[in-house]
Amino acid sequence: MNLKKMVGIAAAEEVKDGQILGLGTGSTTNYFIEAIGLKVKEEEIKVMGIPTSYDSFLLAKQWNIPVTSLDEHDIDIAVDGADEIDPDLNLIKGGGGAHTLEKIIDYAAAKFIVIADDSKCVDTLGKFPVPLEIIPESRKTVFSAITDMGGIPAIRKAERKVGPVISDNGNFIIDAEFKKIDNPIQLEKDLNSIAGVVENGIFSQMTDKAIIGTSNGIKILK
Amino acid sequence: MNLKKMVGIAAAEEVKDGQILGLGTGSTTNYFIEAIGLKVKEEEIKVMGIPTSYDSFLLAKQWNIPVTSLDEHDIDIAVDGADEIDPDLNLIKGGGGAHTLEKIIDYAAAKFIVIADDSKCVDTLGKFPVPLEIIPESRKTVFSAITDMGGIPAIRKAERKVGPVISDNGNFIIDAEFKKIDNPIQLEKDLNSIAGVVENGIFSQMTDKAIIGTSNGIKILK
Amino acid sequence: MNLKKMVGIAAAEEVKDGQILGLGTGSTTNYFIEAIGLKVKEEEIKVMGIPTSYDSFLLAKQWNIPVTSLDEHDIDIAVDGADEIDPDLNLIKGGGGAHTLEKIIDYAAAKFIVIADDSKCVDTLGKFPVPLEIIPESRKTVFSAITDMGGIPAIRKAERKVGPVISDNGNFIIDAEFKKIDNPIQLEKDLNSIAGVVENGIFSQMTDKAIIGTSNGIKILK
Amino acid sequence: MNLKKMVGIAAAEEVKDGQILGLGTGSTTNYFIEAIGLKVKEEEIKVMGIPTSYDSFLLAKQWNIPVTSLDEHDIDIAVDGADEIDPDLNLIKGGGGAHTLEKIIDYAAAKFIVIADDSKCVDTLGKFPVPLEIIPESRKTVFSAITDMGGIPAIRKAERKVGPVISDNGNFIIDAEFKKIDNPIQLEKDLNSIAGVVENGIFSQMTDKAIIGTSNGIKILK
Repeated sequence: MNLKKMVGIAAAEEVKDGQILGLGTGSTTNYFIEAIGLKVKEEEIKVMGIPTSYDSFLLAKQWNIPVTSLDEHDIDIAVDGADEIDPDLNLIKGGGGAHTLEKIIDYAAAKFIVIADDSKCVDTLGKFPVPLEIIPESRKTVFSAITDMGGIPAIRKAERKVGPVISDNGNFIIDAEFKKIDNPIQLEKDLNSIAGVVENGIFSQMTDKAIIGTSNGIKILK
Repeated sequence: MNLKKMVGIAAAEEVKDGQILGLGTGSTTNYFIEAIGLKVKEEEIKVMGIPTSYDSFLLAKQWNIPVTSLDEHDIDIAVDGADEIDPDLNLIKGGGGAHTLEKIIDYAAAKFIVIADDSKCVDTLGKFPVPLEIIPESRKTVFSAITDMGGIPAIRKAERKVGPVISDNGNFIIDAEFKKIDNPIQLEKDLNSIAGVVENGIFSQMTDKAIIGTSNGIKILK
Repeated sequence: MNLKKMVGIAAAEEVKDGQILGLGTGSTTNYFIEAIGLKVKEEEIKVMGIPTSYDSFLLAKQWNIPVTSLDEHDIDIAVDGADEIDPDLNLIKGGGGAHTLEKIIDYAAAKFIVIADDSKCVDTLGKFPVPLEIIPESRKTVFSAITDMGGIPAIRKAERKVGPVISDNGNFIIDAEFKKIDNPIQLEKDLNSIAGVVENGIFSQMTDKAIIGTSNGIKILK
Repeated sequence: MNLKKMVGIAAAEEVKDGQILGLGTGSTTNYFIEAIGLKVKEEEIKVMGIPTSYDSFLLAKQWNIPVTSLDEHDIDIAVDGADEIDPDLNLIKGGGGAHTLEKIIDYAAAKFIVIADDSKCVDTLGKFPVPLEIIPESRKTVFSAITDMGGIPAIRKAERKVGPVISDNGNFIIDAEFKKIDNPIQLEKDLNSIAGVVENGIFSQMTDKAIIGTSNGIKILK
């Protein structure tokens, strides 16, 4: 079995009948959504999902998982992927540009589980650039601030439109390469304190459990 | 000389000192902006540009072309590319997803010149799908309406984020394949009359002149 | 009984168990939503609502009406208010600035019912200015186009923020005074054909029934 | 002379020929913009303005002050008003809902001057609620977080549209009442660390000088 599917299924086993689920975004989380869809179909459990992106919304609908919103329900468990995971379960997310809504939903959950294959586990965060969603007018000043903090910022160019990738909220997505992030808790705060930064892709101190897929089976970190 | 560069330079020759220019978006128009930049540098003409996208803004700045906005100045000449051009100079535009601002600016110009290589010239519009910018909530109803009109709609999926391509205005970009558009003037109106459509990529009855690059030199259509 | 409440209750009587409802926005429609809420509570009917604004969403939640979206369900009946109603049941809507989503939802409904007190009935539309939602960059060119069409455009100034009222989609709201609209069907199309206009507040040819409250009771128009 | 006009003129006296100016928003700053306009007209100084809102853009144009953007120029001096000013020159801003762009521009300035009449001076910030711009989906979780921090959050309701005031960036504006803010530096960071908060209205540690109008004349704080 592929590792992504393995952890998606493992996360689905934590879900109980009647729960409200945060539905993350990405290829690994898609296996989680499918596994929930199968439980809805075969075990007839009653759950509702709160999607973190249009894609996870569509996948939920495809599997007949009823969807709702944070305005209507609190979240019992959110399950999401990550681009990097450190030993303290700090994360970098946002390769898919959906990290603002992911952070809103993952933080709102009573329990947040990250799922990934073990290629995402690192000793220190930072090889993967930190995605940021920014107000377009702040591009130049955000770049200065990030440079002052030791990062190398770049606008994420779109492939299928001209110009920058635009987030679902209508903002620019940029990527900041820090190479080695010694203090992710501090960097997450510092990046959000830059005027014009809507949200950054560091998720520190919020993961309750990581389910990691390895060639030897599943490894749990908490 | 490549055909795109040839027509970009030819369009720049139409520009007079003191004029306000609409700066289109795309690989062909980029040659126009560069040619204007050279005139600013070498001939010291005074012009100002109103960009149709962040990319054409950046290119203008790189060439030291002062930029302004429609709120501040009227446009003398707008120059833009196209994805398809028919013999009546009706266009399909929006492969780059910037057609809403392009239409606002191109329509506002006293004179609108389209530039392209001759691969863009067609007898009848429609082989290139018509891009539309739509309010996200209207996705399903817009799809129904387009299907009723004989088109095949598809969401434009992003490559560098999850989910749909988002326009600079924060909306979805979709593409509607009509194969053969007998009446582009009517279709442009009909598409804009669908609730939720912000703007579509048919530009009918607005082109004053087309400068077409061919292997035998430049061809002018008006 | 006040006239708005009278028609809100009358519209609710048309709703059958199991239906999907478009929930309009405004003081009259609020009585409809409350009346549905009472039927949900007392008659235990199962319906779902698709709100046209954040306010109608909140009111639906308050009355425990489950909400859903156009992406998930088709609409059986939409009920909404109007600022003006002519004898052919053409409408002007958008005093509340929500007309884009209202039009998407009301047009999507199998049956669209407008409810109002009789002060909203006019012989000819136009005393109430036509609201338009526009892309901010198009302000000046939209104003020119409207003036050419005989209208007097004005930006709607906000009271509780500086500058223009911003729509839920992030666009400007303007109001165009036409005084007397001889052909609302044509004007609706013409306004939507102006580059930069997202949606206008003329709703022609879509109302299936009007429930009008008068001091002599309810009057039905179709 | 009224106090607002007095400080607007005083701030304009700090401006030198050739400078790039951040143009704040609000009734006090409007006097500054007018004073600059007079200097442009009468003393023929060459300056350019970077407006913090559509209103200050329009006022600049009315006074023939050329406008530019942060992408094009660095700012020498930004001048802006405030809703509250404490003795350390920490501010609460955002009564006008424009604080995100104001903060981007004011922070970017080499020198930031706040101007106000002395009714805005307080010993401790917090009687004026702190405005926040938030992603709409985060409404409920932001409210929880603010409540946990001792604040009382409220959605800012619009007067001329239904539902919440929408910011120029398309987000909700909320107001959080803290009554007494002991550590504005910390609160500014903490509020920006809540997932979904785009920017908050506390401006700490960035004011270089305050020009305060009193009935006894001008008072300078730095």
